[in-house]
Formats: sequence, structure tokens, C-alpha cells
Amino acid sequence: MARGCSVLGAGGGGDTYTSLLAARHAIERFGPVRLVDLDNLPDDALIMPCGGIGAPVVSIEKLGTGEEGRWLRDGLEQARQGRVAALMAGEIGGANGMQPINWAAHIGLPVVDADGMGRAFPEIPQVTMEIAGISASPAVLADERGNRLAITAADGAWMERIERTLSVEFGGRASGTEYSLTAAEARTATVRDSVTLAIRIGEAMAAAEEPLDALRESVGARVLVTGKLTDVERRVTGGFVRGRVEVGGLGEHRGRTVVLEIQNENLVALDGDRVLASVPDIITVLDSETAEAIHTERLRYGQRVSVAAFPCDPIWRSPRGLALAGPRSFGYDFDYVPIEELAA
Amino acid sequence: MARGCSVLGAGGGGDTYTSLLAARHAIERFGPVRLVDLDNLPDDALIMPCGGIGAPVVSIEKLGTGEEGRWLRDGLEQARQGRVAALMAGEIGGANGMQPINWAAHIGLPVVDADGMGRAFPEIPQVTMEIAGISASPAVLADERGNRLAITAADGAWMERIERTLSVEFGGRASGTEYSLTAAEARTATVRDSVTLAIRIGEAMAAAEEPLDALRESVGARVLVTGKLTDVERRVTGGFVRGRVEVGGLGEHRGRTVVLEIQNENLVALDGDRVLASVPDIITVLDSETAEAIHTERLRYGQRVSVAAFPCDPIWRSPRGLALAGPRSFGYDFDYVPIEELAA
Repeated sequence: MARGCSVLGAGGGGDTYTSLLAARHAIERFGPVRLVDLDNLPDDALIMPCGGIGAPVVSIEKLGTGEEGRWLRDGLEQARQGRVAALMAGEIGGANGMQPINWAAHIGLPVVDADGMGRAFPEIPQVTMEIAGISASPAVLADERGNRLAITAADGAWMERIERTLSVEFGGRASGTEYSLTAAEARTATVRDSVTLAIRIGEAMAAAEEPLDALRESVGARVLVTGKLTDVERRVTGGFVRGRVEVGGLGEHRGRTVVLEIQNENLVALDGDRVLASVPDIITVLDSETAEAIHTERLRYGQRVSVAAFPCDPIWRSPRGLALAGPRSFGYDFDYVPIEELAA
Repeated sequence: MARGCSVLGAGGGGDTYTSLLAARHAIERFGPVRLVDLDNLPDDALIMPCGGIGAPVVSIEKLGTGEEGRWLRDGLEQARQGRVAALMAGEIGGANGMQPINWAAHIGLPVVDADGMGRAFPEIPQVTMEIAGISASPAVLADERGNRLAITAADGAWMERIERTLSVEFGGRASGTEYSLTAAEARTATVRDSVTLAIRIGEAMAAAEEPLDALRESVGARVLVTGKLTDVERRVTGGFVRGRVEVGGLGEHRGRTVVLEIQNENLVALDGDRVLASVPDIITVLDSETAEAIHTERLRYGQRVSVAAFPCDPIWRSPRGLALAGPRSFGYDFDYVPIEELAA
């Protein structure tokens, strides 16, 4: 699952190495976590989407205690005056896809087989629940010092501003739940079966002789370039990791240079002025030796990599999905073209 | 009362001109507000200290709706699971001393004859409730867009950091309640009779031929210098008004130059290296023509003024009071000496 979450993270969502250790440790202590399908929960069961907010770079050092899920659950139950039935990853990508396993183990709740993105995105309202008209409020934000906030925001964009500025104040990292919803709502307002998908991707890559072939078969991935990281610019600013990396082609790709632009996630892949892939499609950098996805905060000069891109969940290709997470929503001056068309 | 609040504000707490208009308007619409003594409230009556947070400069333009008190009351009642019995000024100084009158009129609650400072201070934990060991949490913060937060902070210093960063994000101004407490607690944890004091100061100054004499008699004020503002540096940064002003003496003070250093409030008055007065004592700039106190955001080059200083409430001269609001707490490298001793 961790391997699959990393692939789906498009470089973001946080590194899965520490979150995998944390989840394993929690399961050893508290027992396994039940994965439930939304169809098997009562209509009015309250689902708590949750995860970390901030710059993934910071989360490598600020590991958390595992109790964050309890704080969020307690805060949400007070704010909504109801019991939380299950946790859900706000985003299946990266550590945030694994986080609910760790937290759910601590409090004995199940995790639903769904998430709010089918990948990772940098900003809070970039979730399928926002598209479905679910309110981001009430949200709960917590840090490890005992700071806890119940937040009602004017809208999703204000929730982003409020939680981002607080995560910066808290040292670059906080835990939050937003867009809580009932199981009945979640059946149409989330990306379904994404935990299962992450596990299937991971298993296929582990079993395959050529992991890139497995990725091609399981999610329709295209390899944009295979080569070496020849330039890495990365900074933590305004609560995000921002930067760009350059991949110089090797072997059959010699002479090709692909640039990735980053805001927590890999947003676009460019060959000169030509767009090779862009949000909301998923661009993932894979280590050529291990075939593990490399998160943006781990990119280093000299790494041998392949850059793969594959289609996002179809909801992101709708007009409302593109308004929320298409290239123009990130400030780019071009329209989205699906990876299948760009590759053809 | 507005005139007295301005004098007690030490230049801060926000300009009382707009808050006086707002309070009058609210009283015309909703009827008068009852002033109650803490001794006449049941022990368990919940008191809501409240006011604006941010840079006073901003509040001249961001006037508020008058409904802020209702939002805070509703949020606090949900967080504390109890009914608010009365409002109280977090600080009697400046607009924040008047604010509860406006808000209480809107929701039909009384205002208690007490506050948390006996003056104005720039930071949230600089209140007598903090000295008394009352928790700053749960707090409620609101802006005019519909953003509402219920905050449990690790301590008073974190409450300051959280609310300050949010007030900046909200455009430099927010409304908040912190350190809510029962009437029984408030009897020993607040500055008593401060609304009455503000009214008495205002009445004495209005009635006197020489307002400075009235101030001398009512609060023991000393005049540090009478002259002209010859230099004003002021900027809004990090959610505060910061700066320094220079007063060049005229008449009997010709040749004397007094510098005031500002963080929302006038913190210290200096004659070269010599400290003439400092926090927590109250330093107030008065217009020579009208005898009205001039808030720090209204100081302008060329104004004819008198700078007066007078003793703070005795609680601030205790070791815990000085740790919280003495010169060293603001980064100065000298110990507090009471204004009476400095003047002698």
C-alpha cells in the first residue's frame, strides 16, 4: 500500500517511509485496521477525512505521535455533535494515504476504501468533496503541543488560507480533518476503492520484473523520460515545497531534457515549451534502481530516474474538477490536455 | 467613557472615535446597556472578556458590523457548553474598552465594571487573568466574512501566536474572546471598577478648565513634556503598529526631546538614555488644544501635545505582572521603576 500511495502521490502527500513504519508500529500495538467499503456502512455513518497539512519536507523530521487522529476525532465529534464511524484519507497520495491506518489503529476505528483526490494535491479544497458541494467546515486542526482548533471557514479557499497560515506558525506541519461527510454522501463524493488501488499498484510493481511495465498495465502510465537529475531547485515557502527539477535523458532518451515544476506535487512536465503532462494527471518520479517513487522532498542531484505520467480520476477532468485543480488553477497559461492525447 | 478609555489606552486599544459612534448607534437601536458589578452576579455566571485583535491602524477602516459579539458569544457557549451572563472588556484602553457596550447592546447582555488590564497592552496573554492562572482557552476568533474558530491553545503565548497570525491573514483585524471565567473567579482576577474609572476620568477632564490638572488629580498623572511632534515613524508589521515618535519641548520644556517607543501602545518614554516612564505604567499623548488622548495610529508630525504618564494597576507591579508586561518582556534591557520614583 505504501508503494502504491507513493506512486499515486505525484511526488506529494509526504514521504511514505516514516508513515509505513508508524502504521506498522501502531498495528503491532493495537491490532489490524479494518478496511470497509462505503456500501457496507449505514447512510448516516460519519466519515472523517484526515491527514497532514504543510510542507512534506518538514514531516520527515516532525513525525507526530500517532495520537493526532484521536485529537481530530474528538474535536470533530464535538463540532458535529455526533460520533465518527470511520476515517478516510483526504488524499490517497503519499504519507497522507497511509496516515489514517496509523491513526485508526490507535482509536480502533475502520478506514474506508476511498479518498478525496485519488492522488495528492497541495491545497485543501482540491478534493472531490468540494466538487460535490460538501462543506469544508467544521474542520479541526491540531499540533503536537496541545494546540487544537475547530474551524468554520467562509469557504474552502478560506479554509486553505487559515490552515496554511497556522501550519506555518506551528513549524510547517499540522494535522487536520476537513470536509467530513456521511457515508451516503461519500458514496458519490469521493474517489472509490483507492486504498485497494494503492495496494494493487504496489503488489503489481513488487511482483513484476519490470516495474514500469506493471505501472503501464495497472494505471496506464507513460514514461516521459529516463535519465539523471541534473538540476534540483527546492525551497519551503508559505507552507509549501516549491521548486523545479531537470531530468537529462540517458540511453534512448539521450538529448532530451524534461523539467518538472513543483508545488508539493509535480505539477507539470515540460520539454522546452512543450507540455508533456500536467495536473490533474499524475506525474511521478521513479528511482531507476529500486522502482520506488521518489517524493519531491527526496529528489537529489544525480539520481537515476524515470518520469512516468498517468491519468487522474475522471472527476478531475470535468469542468469543475479542472477549475479546482487544472493547470490554470495553478497559474499556468495553458489548457489541460489529457496525458493519453499528449502521449499520442 | 470614550475619553477615559482613550487616556487609559496608553495610545493603544484602538481609536475610540468610531467605537463611540458604533456604541451610540447600537444603544439607539437596542436600548441602553446595563453596567453590573461582579459582586451582584451569581458565582457561576460566565463572563466573556472580548475585543478586537490586530493593528489599531486597520480598525479605522475595518469598522465591524456590531454582530461580532453575538458570534463570539455563540462560539463560546458552544465551546464551554454554558450560557454567557455578561460581557467584559479584555482591555479597558481605547476602542476595546468601548467595544463590549456596542456588542452587548446587540445581544441584550450586561457589561461588567471590570477589565483584564486596567489599560491596553499589545499581546493577548498580557491580562490579569493570565496572572491569576485562568486559561486563555477556549477562545473564539471571528472575522466579518464568516470565518469562526474555537481555539484551545497550549498556553497564553501560543494563543497570542495563533490569533496574531490569523488576524494578519484576515486583513489585520479580528474579534476575539479569551480567558473566559466565572464571576467568582473574576472578582479577584480582573481590574475592578475600570469602566467607572474611565467615566470618572472623562467627566473630570470635560469639567476641568485645565484637563491636565484633572488627570493629575484623578489618576496621579505626571507631564513628561509639552511640545510638538517633530518625528513620527510608524509601520504595520506582524499584526502590530510599531514605531517611535519624537516630541520636541516648547515653552518651559524648550530644549527637551522625548522619544516614545511604540508597539500598538506607548511602551517607554526616553530622554536620551534616561527612562522617564515605561510599561506597565501608562504613557498617554494628549492633544494640547482639545486635551483628547491621541492614539498611536493618529500621531502626526506637527501635532502640539503633552505626554503624560501615570501608575498602572498595582497587579502589574507584582513579579508575575512585570514578567508578563514589564520592560524586559518587551525586549528592553532595564528594570521597571515606578513612575512616581522616576518623577521624583
